[in-house]
Amino acid sequence: MKNTFGTSVCLTVFGESHGPFIGAVLDGIAPGIEVNEDDIRHALTLRRPAGRISTSRQEKDEYTIASGVFEGKTTGTPIAIIIPNADTRSKDYKKTYGLARPGHADFAAYCKYHGFEDFRGGGHFSGRVTSALVAAGAIARAALAKKGIYIGTHIKELAGVPDRAFDDLKADIDDLYTKVFPVLSAEAEQKMRAEIESAASDGDSVGGLLETVIIGMPAGVGEPYFDSLESVISHMMFSVPGVKGVLFGAGMDFAKMRGSEANDAFRIENGRVYTKTNNNGGVNGGITNGNPVTFTTVIKPTPSIYKKQETIDFVENTEKDISIEGRHDPCIAHRARIVVDSLTAIALCDMLACRYGTDWINE
Amino acid sequence: MKNTFGTSVCLTVFGESHGPFIGAVLDGIAPGIEVNEDDIRHALTLRRPAGRISTSRQEKDEYTIASGVFEGKTTGTPIAIIIPNADTRSKDYKKTYGLARPGHADFAAYCKYHGFEDFRGGGHFSGRVTSALVAAGAIARAALAKKGIYIGTHIKELAGVPDRAFDDLKADIDDLYTKVFPVLSAEAEQKMRAEIESAASDGDSVGGLLETVIIGMPAGVGEPYFDSLESVISHMMFSVPGVKGVLFGAGMDFAKMRGSEANDAFRIENGRVYTKTNNNGGVNGGITNGNPVTFTTVIKPTPSIYKKQETIDFVENTEKDISIEGRHDPCIAHRARIVVDSLTAIALCDMLACRYGTDWINE
Amino acid sequence: MKNTFGTSVCLTVFGESHGPFIGAVLDGIAPGIEVNEDDIRHALTLRRPAGRISTSRQEKDEYTIASGVFEGKTTGTPIAIIIPNADTRSKDYKKTYGLARPGHADFAAYCKYHGFEDFRGGGHFSGRVTSALVAAGAIARAALAKKGIYIGTHIKELAGVPDRAFDDLKADIDDLYTKVFPVLSAEAEQKMRAEIESAASDGDSVGGLLETVIIGMPAGVGEPYFDSLESVISHMMFSVPGVKGVLFGAGMDFAKMRGSEANDAFRIENGRVYTKTNNNGGVNGGITNGNPVTFTTVIKPTPSIYKKQETIDFVENTEKDISIEGRHDPCIAHRARIVVDSLTAIALCDMLACRYGTDWINE
Amino acid sequence: MKNTFGTSVCLTVFGESHGPFIGAVLDGIAPGIEVNEDDIRHALTLRRPAGRISTSRQEKDEYTIASGVFEGKTTGTPIAIIIPNADTRSKDYKKTYGLARPGHADFAAYCKYHGFEDFRGGGHFSGRVTSALVAAGAIARAALAKKGIYIGTHIKELAGVPDRAFDDLKADIDDLYTKVFPVLSAEAEQKMRAEIESAASDGDSVGGLLETVIIGMPAGVGEPYFDSLESVISHMMFSVPGVKGVLFGAGMDFAKMRGSEANDAFRIENGRVYTKTNNNGGVNGGITNGNPVTFTTVIKPTPSIYKKQETIDFVENTEKDISIEGRHDPCIAHRARIVVDSLTAIALCDMLACRYGTDWINE
Repeated sequence: MKNTFGTSVCLTVFGESHGPFIGAVLDGIAPGIEVNEDDIRHALTLRRPAGRISTSRQEKDEYTIASGVFEGKTTGTPIAIIIPNADTRSKDYKKTYGLARPGHADFAAYCKYHGFEDFRGGGHFSGRVTSALVAAGAIARAALAKKGIYIGTHIKELAGVPDRAFDDLKADIDDLYTKVFPVLSAEAEQKMRAEIESAASDGDSVGGLLETVIIGMPAGVGEPYFDSLESVISHMMFSVPGVKGVLFGAGMDFAKMRGSEANDAFRIENGRVYTKTNNNGGVNGGITNGNPVTFTTVIKPTPSIYKKQETIDFVENTEKDISIEGRHDPCIAHRARIVVDSLTAIALCDMLACRYGTDWINE
Repeated sequence: MKNTFGTSVCLTVFGESHGPFIGAVLDGIAPGIEVNEDDIRHALTLRRPAGRISTSRQEKDEYTIASGVFEGKTTGTPIAIIIPNADTRSKDYKKTYGLARPGHADFAAYCKYHGFEDFRGGGHFSGRVTSALVAAGAIARAALAKKGIYIGTHIKELAGVPDRAFDDLKADIDDLYTKVFPVLSAEAEQKMRAEIESAASDGDSVGGLLETVIIGMPAGVGEPYFDSLESVISHMMFSVPGVKGVLFGAGMDFAKMRGSEANDAFRIENGRVYTKTNNNGGVNGGITNGNPVTFTTVIKPTPSIYKKQETIDFVENTEKDISIEGRHDPCIAHRARIVVDSLTAIALCDMLACRYGTDWINE
Repeated sequence: MKNTFGTSVCLTVFGESHGPFIGAVLDGIAPGIEVNEDDIRHALTLRRPAGRISTSRQEKDEYTIASGVFEGKTTGTPIAIIIPNADTRSKDYKKTYGLARPGHADFAAYCKYHGFEDFRGGGHFSGRVTSALVAAGAIARAALAKKGIYIGTHIKELAGVPDRAFDDLKADIDDLYTKVFPVLSAEAEQKMRAEIESAASDGDSVGGLLETVIIGMPAGVGEPYFDSLESVISHMMFSVPGVKGVLFGAGMDFAKMRGSEANDAFRIENGRVYTKTNNNGGVNGGITNGNPVTFTTVIKPTPSIYKKQETIDFVENTEKDISIEGRHDPCIAHRARIVVDSLTAIALCDMLACRYGTDWINE
Repeated sequence: MKNTFGTSVCLTVFGESHGPFIGAVLDGIAPGIEVNEDDIRHALTLRRPAGRISTSRQEKDEYTIASGVFEGKTTGTPIAIIIPNADTRSKDYKKTYGLARPGHADFAAYCKYHGFEDFRGGGHFSGRVTSALVAAGAIARAALAKKGIYIGTHIKELAGVPDRAFDDLKADIDDLYTKVFPVLSAEAEQKMRAEIESAASDGDSVGGLLETVIIGMPAGVGEPYFDSLESVISHMMFSVPGVKGVLFGAGMDFAKMRGSEANDAFRIENGRVYTKTNNNGGVNGGITNGNPVTFTTVIKPTPSIYKKQETIDFVENTEKDISIEGRHDPCIAHRARIVVDSLTAIALCDMLACRYGTDWINE
């Protein structure tokens, strides 16, 4: 039980919202991968608050690669990324310690850390910590790209508004990567933005679904017990703040399907095996079958809302009301997208290194 | 990447459907837990095929506790449970090797094991292997019961038919444990059984949702990154054959909720903190908050169906049709229930031992 | 903290001396490795008591490969090996429970397991448990042999009597594997046997040093922190009952050397790098350098002796004397040899699979 | 296989000698431990070069606690310590890349990282990286002290000169902690210093033995297989640069002892069990028995020496001579001492948290 993920490619995270630095250590990435700092900066931009649908906080994310990169390439030793915290208003928080924000980890953290937790701005639980993960993920994605493995995520549904389905996978992935608000249909995007603004004007927030597709994964990756590809991906995804569900392939629809609909018929085209449908999301028995891997994550509405809520003060042990002041996001689905992409990339690097060895990505 | 789960309480699984033995090793359970063999036998009964809605195979599950139990109590050293295979008809399988059953792991396993896999009866991927896990889980559940922690799972929905919601949690858990077909509403049970029989008579199968509730979990268990309670439970659940989704608390509904609906208001009753709703399923920020932990697993329809399907022969590299002969289940949701309960129990034992030490369960 | 070793190739052990079965699960071995049962039987013979210098117990070691082997080859799924216990005289033990045998784990186990441990015949701490590890090791050694990697161990010193040094490594390894008493020099063997018999006739026991050499390891295996090759090997070796020290290369001599003597000069022969000396035992900075890997393990004298010793009864909490009755070994160094070889093989398989992937051994 | 150690308390290391930062992440330390920055600074002083017997490099070790400490106490979340590199003369190194320093990791690293490694100043293999581990260790030692667990290490032997044995353990531990050159006997210290200076004047270096004692460890910690206390400690110790052997208790002497000498007689004093001798170093069957834990590490002579040595250029693939210029240590045993203490402390915190839970240290 720890703040490190992985077997061969490992990710360690540290930092609190208002501490000196947040950071991540990415260990086990093959040597010789080019580290493109523009990629890292772009990825960080995708996580940063965006216009009216996000918090007005200014997060600069001026990261330093502290180790593991030499002359622009990975060395094979641990890559540490550190990001100093700035624009923190710590004094806002102290007076409210004990007041549990509903939907947040405040009370659970108190039960775990007995009041020693750094509570300022959510502390270690702040979404801010994910910026280091995103920077690390950019390097993992570069490694995967060398093998033709690409990951893309769109908002499949937000406040009930659906996006169109993935179509040309590579083109859609490329398109999404250019967008701060990752929706495939322009019309859906307008409706979703309107829903977010409507919730914001009510002092409220909205949730949604993210759908991720991975192309290029070789068949034969994953274990039957207990490190199925689904197990490893879901393990990672449930660390993304706000994720409350992970579903592969047809997901919820399986509950209403019959086997004859759910099963994916195997076919051969140009000597290559594929399936006519992909209800199983590219995974059978925990192991990739060579099809695109697809999964959906459920993102709950941002728990920070302006509306008055009932809660407790766990220091005083009394019931109280709370109205969460300050700057916060009426929706985090669009910002969570690049966190999902980044952590997926790291989980895949780990599974591939376990399967094919630490240097495979270069072969 | 391996066939062992866990950090402090570990579970290793082995065996193939038609090999000499299947088995499991459960390591790290505190010494002194009473091992009630009736409990183990009852748990195995819940997994066994049941009447018209199941396969007609006779599975005897005559297990032996090979180690780790002395004079009726756990010793603290690894508990190995072995179950000999019987009533196997291996000759059925050899002639069909290469013919990939849609929805099954045959092709993925071939890509991973290069044709050396024991393909008979699904080999290591057979649901049969889970009987050893169920036996191990009975011991883990006994350990949890010493601390007042109980787990129950019902079929929340099957082929579109919903069960009633959990009501009196402890009573419902106790009730479910007596039932081979774990549904709370007698009326719902009738409809579900009818759906299964209808699918069976079409040579087809159905899927469903299982909902699990855990009562008695202390607050403060789980890690923010990366071993959140949700991560650890989902890691385990995606090893249960047929599971394609794991959702905590309100699950899919979060996508359509607003924050003001989704957030669970904290309240105090008799000095004890609880929440008015439990949309977050007892977990905030990856850590238990003292409420019941609830999650839903999506069970896909059994992939083995009599209906003719399109597929390939991956040895000959040709397209073929397949009709799966033999004895198989038109639904596995009810049989998967005890596997879910068992693996949940083991995952909880692991998280609790990590948090409170290896002897806590006895304190 | 657990009874499982490894990252990619994993070994789980279970069983007590007088329980129904002892066994081991070896997971992660590549599919397609030929399993030669004669090899396994021969390895078990090397561990079995041998003539006058060993216990008179009859250990049959009739193992069953319960899973993971199909048509004579590994499948890639977990290989479970189970060995039933026989010729146990449990009644001998019960009356003496509480009387801590000096040098044994009785008291430490009581502190850990609180009296629930299976104390009969040393329980889980019995050397008998290693027979399952030896059987598993025979399969790992077969895998390594496919890549030209061989392991051999001799008694370097016993009761002060030295063996000759390794000379022609492959020939010596082959020779040792034929010998129940693994000493290179016939003369040294005579003297060592005489020392064992002399100790036995005094109701006493002797210790010694085992030296292991590994040939064929590729350069570049091991991690700088914390999974150095030395770390991984020593982790494994300190699980061999009786091992109290692990030293690489020149070992103890480093303490008295100067850098100019200790450093191994690199040279090139036929385009291949080697070192003139091998004081570093084939490892620099935790990583193999392509030379043979050499290490020494210190084996303490068997703690079971007939001589009267002072001790306590930890149940009664009184001081007592003890004379250990029954059948025991005046020396275990020769029997520990194959345990060292076997566990080394498994540790190497793990490190190689991590480095080069799960299928490398077949490439 | 990774740059992270531990199960419950985890240590991750990163950094290269001439990169922007070195650092460490210590995760899993209980919340509420006081972090005394004077302790950290003192520990760093003990690692820093000292006068004539060390390199003339100026290492400032101006560390920052980047996370995990709030208002002077640990929070329970990961503690990251970062140390910027300064006084680096990178240009010295580039021209000599390819020239393998005998006894160093240069060639092994090249085989592992294929020339992408940051070779400047030893890169990730530099002893400099250990300064972050020492800072982390100071926090772990503070945690242990809350439970009365103390660690001390002296130079047991250097260039053949022995120190006196431990006597009053607590007093000796306290004394050693004040000394930059950790030797108990003043006379032995003079002789050892003379040996170092003599070697230095010959352009050579010396090795030695460090002996560590741990007092206050409860009985019952460690696993029989495979995480014996000896396995876990040795795993850690073989990550300390220069360590080539780890021996518990009587160590090498076991090879010449008889069982009747080696066995430690159990006795009772004031109701507490102890042993008359402590040849087993406080560990039986992998588990602590309540006595002081003692172990010895073999430190090889510093491989960097001024004397001319034979070697190769692995880029040009030619044989060459090398004289290592620059500033280096004629002995590292005294500086390695605090690294041994620090990593031992972290390993113990891990084992204790696994055994007794994450909060035990505060109970």
